[in-house]
Amino acid sequence: MSIAPWRNAIARALHRNRSLVYARYLQLATVRSNGRPANRTVVFRGFLEDTNKLKFITDDRSEKVDQIQQQPWAEVCWYFPSTREQFRISGCLTLVGWDNFDPVLQQSRTTTWQELSDAARIQFAWPHPGKPRRMEEQKTFILPQPDPMQPLANFCLLLLDPVKVDHLELRGEPQNRWLYCYDDQQKEWFIQAINP
Amino acid sequence: MSIAPWRNAIARALHRNRSLVYARYLQLATVRSNGRPANRTVVFRGFLEDTNKLKFITDDRSEKVDQIQQQPWAEVCWYFPSTREQFRISGCLTLVGWDNFDPVLQQSRTTTWQELSDAARIQFAWPHPGKPRRMEEQKTFILPQPDPMQPLANFCLLLLDPVKVDHLELRGEPQNRWLYCYDDQQKEWFIQAINP
Repeated sequence: MSIAPWRNAIARALHRNRSLVYARYLQLATVRSNGRPANRTVVFRGFLEDTNKLKFITDDRSEKVDQIQQQPWAEVCWYFPSTREQFRISGCLTLVGWDNFDPVLQQSRTTTWQELSDAARIQFAWPHPGKPRRMEEQKTFILPQPDPMQPLANFCLLLLDPVKVDHLELRGEPQNRWLYCYDDQQKEWFIQAINP
Repeated sequence: MSIAPWRNAIARALHRNRSLVYARYLQLATVRSNGRPANRTVVFRGFLEDTNKLKFITDDRSEKVDQIQQQPWAEVCWYFPSTREQFRISGCLTLVGWDNFDPVLQQSRTTTWQELSDAARIQFAWPHPGKPRRMEEQKTFILPQPDPMQPLANFCLLLLDPVKVDHLELRGEPQNRWLYCYDDQQKEWFIQAINP
């Protein structure tokens, strides 16, 4: 696999925005079973090994897991504040849960778990996300740290395999915008400058 | 109309993040005609008069206009960096173009145009967004400023009428999350604390 041509632009944006911790936060849109969109912030966890797939994590009890199982297509919108540029990345999502038998993906799921902070890991031990909160039971959130080596069963690695990347630079004069499209037959990325 | 209960939380977040110009930027998810999601950054332009509708602007030549005409349901994801909180707002979109005959909405469209900066207004005079860019024709972007009083025909006001607001505070211990749902029969908002 070769590094996709849009990877350079992402690497540059990450570097130039490195002082902002939230430059690694982006918004993931999926589609609900009723055909309406859903949208939430997720954290970019790097690329999967020697692929162009973006890594995220999720709890298999979260609503997005059901949405993805029904409609795996997604679009992330990634805005970089310091450099005033946006990437819109469309592609197909893959969930890697405890029951995924691909050894490479399972290893990556484990490594991703090990790389998390304690604060990130403990959230997977919390009560069911999105369910009514029992305020009198504050203690349900006070838990021993889970094993830092072995992921909890509800921990999922989430992979986005891009097929289209729309890169907009607001700082240009007028502005610059490029569209990268993957041609599945030629196994190649094509780039085009488009109007902003 | 009464001010929805989640409006206070938004007002507080906007105030506490006021030093960041991009705290007014949020991500709007819609659904494409092929059933896949689309996602892009838009700028919050305030609330419509004495309603709880969020105002945005768009060019009627942009792809989202076709998407909205087919599927008006949307979800915006609004992340506030300084206070580390997120609002996910679901609702129905309304496009207000030059041919909308509601006098209140048309007046609001005109006022929104008048409140834009020159840099924002000129973009509506640019060549068709998303079409291949003719690099030799840089001059197609060098144009006289449009009339600051009278909107160009392709300028649209875009309104989001929320029915569900999911507010997550990452800073709490553990974290705090509230769900606001509008009950269409009782014409009232209901609030519930939910697990983060």
